[in-house]
Amino acid sequence: MQDIEFTVEDGRLFVLQTRTGKRTARAALRIAVEMVREKRIGPETAILRVDPAALDQLLHPTFDEKAPAEVVAKGLGASPGAAVGRAVFTAEDAEAWHSRGESVILVRAETSPEDVGGMHAAAGILTSRGGLTSHAAVVARGWGKCCIVGCGELSIDARAKRFEAGSRVVVEGDWISIDGSGGRVMLGKVPTVRPSMGEDFRTLMKWADRCRRLGVRTNADTPADARVARDFGAEGIGLCRTEHMFFSSPERIRAVREMILADSPEGRARALDKLLPFQRADFEGLFEAMDGLPVTIRLLDPPLHEFVPHEEAQQAEMAREMGVSLPEVQRRVRALHEANPMLGHRGCRLGITYPEIYDMQVRAIAEAALACGARKVRVKPEIMIPLVGFETELRFLRARAEAVVAEVQSGSKRRVPFRIGTMIEVPRAAVTAGAIAADADFFSFGTNDLTQMTYGYSRDDAGRFLPQYVEQKVLPWDPFQSIDEEGVGQLVRLACERGRAAREHLHLGVCGEHGGDPQSIDFFERVGLDYVSCSPYRVPIARLAAAQASLAQRKTGRAKPSLATAVAVAGHAIAEAVAPVAGVATE
Amino acid sequence: MQDIEFTVEDGRLFVLQTRTGKRTARAALRIAVEMVREKRIGPETAILRVDPAALDQLLHPTFDEKAPAEVVAKGLGASPGAAVGRAVFTAEDAEAWHSRGESVILVRAETSPEDVGGMHAAAGILTSRGGLTSHAAVVARGWGKCCIVGCGELSIDARAKRFEAGSRVVVEGDWISIDGSGGRVMLGKVPTVRPSMGEDFRTLMKWADRCRRLGVRTNADTPADARVARDFGAEGIGLCRTEHMFFSSPERIRAVREMILADSPEGRARALDKLLPFQRADFEGLFEAMDGLPVTIRLLDPPLHEFVPHEEAQQAEMAREMGVSLPEVQRRVRALHEANPMLGHRGCRLGITYPEIYDMQVRAIAEAALACGARKVRVKPEIMIPLVGFETELRFLRARAEAVVAEVQSGSKRRVPFRIGTMIEVPRAAVTAGAIAADADFFSFGTNDLTQMTYGYSRDDAGRFLPQYVEQKVLPWDPFQSIDEEGVGQLVRLACERGRAAREHLHLGVCGEHGGDPQSIDFFERVGLDYVSCSPYRVPIARLAAAQASLAQRKTGRAKPSLATAVAVAGHAIAEAVAPVAGVATE
Repeated sequence: MQDIEFTVEDGRLFVLQTRTGKRTARAALRIAVEMVREKRIGPETAILRVDPAALDQLLHPTFDEKAPAEVVAKGLGASPGAAVGRAVFTAEDAEAWHSRGESVILVRAETSPEDVGGMHAAAGILTSRGGLTSHAAVVARGWGKCCIVGCGELSIDARAKRFEAGSRVVVEGDWISIDGSGGRVMLGKVPTVRPSMGEDFRTLMKWADRCRRLGVRTNADTPADARVARDFGAEGIGLCRTEHMFFSSPERIRAVREMILADSPEGRARALDKLLPFQRADFEGLFEAMDGLPVTIRLLDPPLHEFVPHEEAQQAEMAREMGVSLPEVQRRVRALHEANPMLGHRGCRLGITYPEIYDMQVRAIAEAALACGARKVRVKPEIMIPLVGFETELRFLRARAEAVVAEVQSGSKRRVPFRIGTMIEVPRAAVTAGAIAADADFFSFGTNDLTQMTYGYSRDDAGRFLPQYVEQKVLPWDPFQSIDEEGVGQLVRLACERGRAAREHLHLGVCGEHGGDPQSIDFFERVGLDYVSCSPYRVPIARLAAAQASLAQRKTGRAKPSLATAVAVAGHAIAEAVAPVAGVATE
Repeated sequence: MQDIEFTVEDGRLFVLQTRTGKRTARAALRIAVEMVREKRIGPETAILRVDPAALDQLLHPTFDEKAPAEVVAKGLGASPGAAVGRAVFTAEDAEAWHSRGESVILVRAETSPEDVGGMHAAAGILTSRGGLTSHAAVVARGWGKCCIVGCGELSIDARAKRFEAGSRVVVEGDWISIDGSGGRVMLGKVPTVRPSMGEDFRTLMKWADRCRRLGVRTNADTPADARVARDFGAEGIGLCRTEHMFFSSPERIRAVREMILADSPEGRARALDKLLPFQRADFEGLFEAMDGLPVTIRLLDPPLHEFVPHEEAQQAEMAREMGVSLPEVQRRVRALHEANPMLGHRGCRLGITYPEIYDMQVRAIAEAALACGARKVRVKPEIMIPLVGFETELRFLRARAEAVVAEVQSGSKRRVPFRIGTMIEVPRAAVTAGAIAADADFFSFGTNDLTQMTYGYSRDDAGRFLPQYVEQKVLPWDPFQSIDEEGVGQLVRLACERGRAAREHLHLGVCGEHGGDPQSIDFFERVGLDYVSCSPYRVPIARLAAAQASLAQRKTGRAKPSLATAVAVAGHAIAEAVAPVAGVATE
């Protein structure tokens, strides 16, 4: 589709300028699919003509651009969509208002795992601090929930339950509208337009699936998320973050805190016994939702201080609940404090110093797998050990996990095939991937953390200089959005090469935010990963981007799958329209 | 020297067992030197027979082991020596007591740059938290001051000015004795033995200097430190940390805080103008102390929040001094807070976002160099830009530094040759060293930070799991003490290869703690660095270790300097004793 400027002078037609016409995602889809039907282009060309990132528009509601709206602030659009609700200022209020049937927008300086209940209850999330990979942003994107972060123009007074934006004041209960794509914060209830994916979308996706080599999995922590992702075409779970389950009910977080307060392995084991049935039920739900598809479960990753309250009032409540004194709780919270939690006592370091925790989680996975297997659910569990930097860490924890699985299975005739692997997210793990591969069935690149450590950037703090860096072109782009091929990418490539050299059939994936970014997916195709994993709402984007990456690879003659398969007829509705396209294929 | 067990039975002598006899460092030195004099061994063999780490005993006082002592706790011996003093619990008290002529031991949970004055005033430092590379440990080693860290058995109540250790209580003013080698905390005044290096030490050091290829520089921030290091044989300063100078007087820290409170480049420049004469005087002192030798000055590295007080009382004082309100100070302190300061707004990131700071420092260096040059001091300044991860960072800051130097020199006929280089301490810098070398005259490996980021360990927090890791053999040793060749070492090697491939005469050094560790020095020899830099009191250790590393390298046939030079006569006193030794040389 072309925009043409022309003039007619003295009976002659002059074409002054022509360029590819701008179009909405829906129009781009329709044009591409209809041109294939009209045999003007083949499906591969159609795939290349749609911008994967633009699909976001189709997957979320948008604001009616014709409606009047007063924009009072702009932040970073962290998770697309349009949300309208009444402003609330604490996670508890969000849950309370939501339970009364109100639509709410949770407004916070920043969020932490303690807020997850309220975040889930909210229609949208708005923070004044943090970047595109802050807690709020990552969690919201995972849920496909509208979110704006880093809206520094807001002056939030959480105690007074109000915020100021310029000369306007919004108090608890006021209606606001937030635009998670453009980052606009608006007063009042701005009307929205519902998304609909439509037939063209499904047709293009089918073509894309036949072209792509990369698998597409999803990052999902609940059966509901998993089902959404599966509807969007996810071929498995690439990352289930078990820690989110620790917060999802008062009984659970209570047991977690008991475990943290316990000062002996036995005390911890007693508290963990209470968590076991919850975790087992969680995993059964995931296995059922993903029947027949692999489910990669990451063992506990965050430091323990994320599970204790940091405000005195809540600490006092915790003390009452646990039957200990407030100073005792405060002593423990202080002891857990870390100067740099990102580089602290977390991931497999917890698994080694408190082995009971991982034992419980592995037991829950194994028991859930057996129980589902008995109900004819086809279970493919993959146990993923985070933050490994040394082969000795993985060897120790793998042996321990295998022992627990064997013990669980010893009571049953059924056998479930387990894969045990690790994340590659610490630079040392990338460099020593050959040694680590000896004990890994798979590697999953945790490119968020790998970028943080390779750069020496904390995602929570880089907001102070990253915008200026990008603006001054010190950095070409935000490295947390698209992978830095020259730096972090070299480590990924090295780990792939060394890992596969040591273990030919090592399965390779990525589960960082980059797994849903088209530019990064092109790199992951070239480097030979087996799959990418991304948040549910990015699965269609990843499918299309993976197809484009495959097509680009084939063009440069490094293809693996045959073009014959890729251009195979893509459904009876358009069967007659498909034809190979010159200039795209080299085979 | 052998320990021989024997028995005589029925007139026959039976030798039951024989092994190399244990000896003190002093005895080892004497035996080695005397055996050369007696022509039993050559100087190279003598060099190989003395353990460099044992030299520490000779460089610091020790406790008289025959005297009675009550050990009440054990921590990590972070900086060797024996210190006896009265317990004090704040840096201010340490300075106050010291100014009254008292010898004090500063007892703290941990130390921060604000405590440096008190640390300097104290005879020894004792902390209950932190590892061998915590602030207290690094600063104390730099000064050769006795220090114990991570003494978790102490329960310190800083407000009450007392600590408990088991059943014993020590209150302010009580005498204690601390052993910085063995980590022992003892009650009362335990008698000490003074060190004396002696003639044997000097003789062996001369032999070592003729054998070694690696240069040995020192990490020093003051002329006094620099002179100590020079007396110990340092061949230049490899790391001057300019931030320590920011704390060394009330006027300075006041100007630094004015700079931090300023909200415009002009305001910052005004405050920095006040710092300029101080910094210039500092650098003049260093250049004079190091007349004829290179002085590498690192521009500001730590995040700005290290320069503001975090206790309300001191914040109020700062507010009064600055003529602003307490809430204003608190707002700024809060704004500077970082979730992971290690990975935050520091190093060259400060230099790019607040260019005035580095401009002032470069100006101070250039003016000091000119002033010293005019006094016939031979000045060899090297400007080192910290925390570079991108070639664009270095390019930007190098251009800016060159402009400032040119401007300063434009007012004078004199020209001082400047080198501008960078630290390699961020994994990305190691991986992209080829591109970074384009703008670097030298690389200095900051292996403390490089280890932190390559491992994903915070030095301040790793104490929670590192001891257990080493104990369970997950890690073979503490990677902050001896470099991890397989992980961090690969990045060092890669950076050396890529850096030299891009720039043949790139000068390579190391200024992390590893620069004074014999095992790491062996690696630095093999990887082809030009020099190591370590704290003043480790210089002799590094000289001997470098000689041993050179000898080991030559044995494997990869030597650069000729053996003929190395075994040249080592001083008239032992000229007649020197002879080439079979079995050591391959040339």
